[in-house]
Amino acid sequence: MTGVAEVAAPAGPDLLALDRAAQDLLFRAARTANTFTAEPVTDAQIAAVHDLIRYGPTALNGQPLRVLLVRSAAARARLLPHVSAGNRAKTAAAPLVAVLAADVDFHRRLPELFPHRPEAGRWLADRAERLAQARFNATLQAGYFLLGVRAAGLAAGPMAGFDAAGVRGEFFPDGRHEVLLLVNIGRPGPDAWHDRLPRLSAEEVIRTV
Amino acid sequence: MTGVAEVAAPAGPDLLALDRAAQDLLFRAARTANTFTAEPVTDAQIAAVHDLIRYGPTALNGQPLRVLLVRSAAARARLLPHVSAGNRAKTAAAPLVAVLAADVDFHRRLPELFPHRPEAGRWLADRAERLAQARFNATLQAGYFLLGVRAAGLAAGPMAGFDAAGVRGEFFPDGRHEVLLLVNIGRPGPDAWHDRLPRLSAEEVIRTV
Repeated sequence: MTGVAEVAAPAGPDLLALDRAAQDLLFRAARTANTFTAEPVTDAQIAAVHDLIRYGPTALNGQPLRVLLVRSAAARARLLPHVSAGNRAKTAAAPLVAVLAADVDFHRRLPELFPHRPEAGRWLADRAERLAQARFNATLQAGYFLLGVRAAGLAAGPMAGFDAAGVRGEFFPDGRHEVLLLVNIGRPGPDAWHDRLPRLSAEEVIRTV
Repeated sequence: MTGVAEVAAPAGPDLLALDRAAQDLLFRAARTANTFTAEPVTDAQIAAVHDLIRYGPTALNGQPLRVLLVRSAAARARLLPHVSAGNRAKTAAAPLVAVLAADVDFHRRLPELFPHRPEAGRWLADRAERLAQARFNATLQAGYFLLGVRAAGLAAGPMAGFDAAGVRGEFFPDGRHEVLLLVNIGRPGPDAWHDRLPRLSAEEVIRTV
């Protein structure tokens, strides 16, 4: 983050309880970074992000998100061939790359995570249904994660341009995980972003019946 | 929110830039509410939530999330038959219910939203591919939305227990939308939640290579 709010405050009274500095840190001044400084991102910082976002809601409290941190040069070399050409240089240069995945067998943990309904795991006996639930709830958690990275004062660079089956085969050969998103993480470097792109208005997004 | 932080601060120095009050409001003290007071939730409050969360990142800046606010008694009566029995009473009683949906034809807006690559819409000519992208990115935005509701000082009650095809047929008959999540919104009422359920530790979620 640059600390510069690039988006004007909304007109009229502020209807949000969240303070303005937090609004800027998480949303209004935060940007997807394409370049990063060399400053390392520590495992402790990512653990602090997780300690915050793990309280975000998921169905049946299932928490299917799993995070693989690609840190070593050897692991980075295994990841890069699966990243689209346009994303490869920045993925090679980022201090840390997180692979966000869904544990398709998250139901195995439900006896601990949803203890008042011990039968909940059996509702997910069908793998196709479980896969859909795992993807959906881990994607909600991916949203929390991106904001959590920003909450740590870091810039996130989420990337959809990669071969999900290739990354899965490389890092999750157990067949129990689906790969959702790659996220470069670090402090923004020179020319980290272009001008902000337009956003849809409330009138274009919200309808009341 | 009760304003009471129910989760202890993490041990050691705080590695987050986000202030503690904001951490509590969005994550640590926030809870999924199952009861609500009668205090109305206004369209202006939801517009303020949208004005905050619309800056969250999506692939190609596509912003596929659409929000239907179910407010009138007539609309509520159309929604309730599609909600699972266990969720029906609280959905009937909530001041406002948001139906979160994905616009499967979000690519039509890309010439405005992603103007530096005018060909981007053509990358999504295949409907199945577009549906997957719409679902994924709108679900990320659903994560932002749930936190945005909390940022407005309101409690969110996300619900997966409903007939998505039924809700789609009732409120999105154009065949261009997928329904993702229902969210009850309001101020928490009496006995709004049980004790917090356990969360996975960093060691259970994060792996470094």
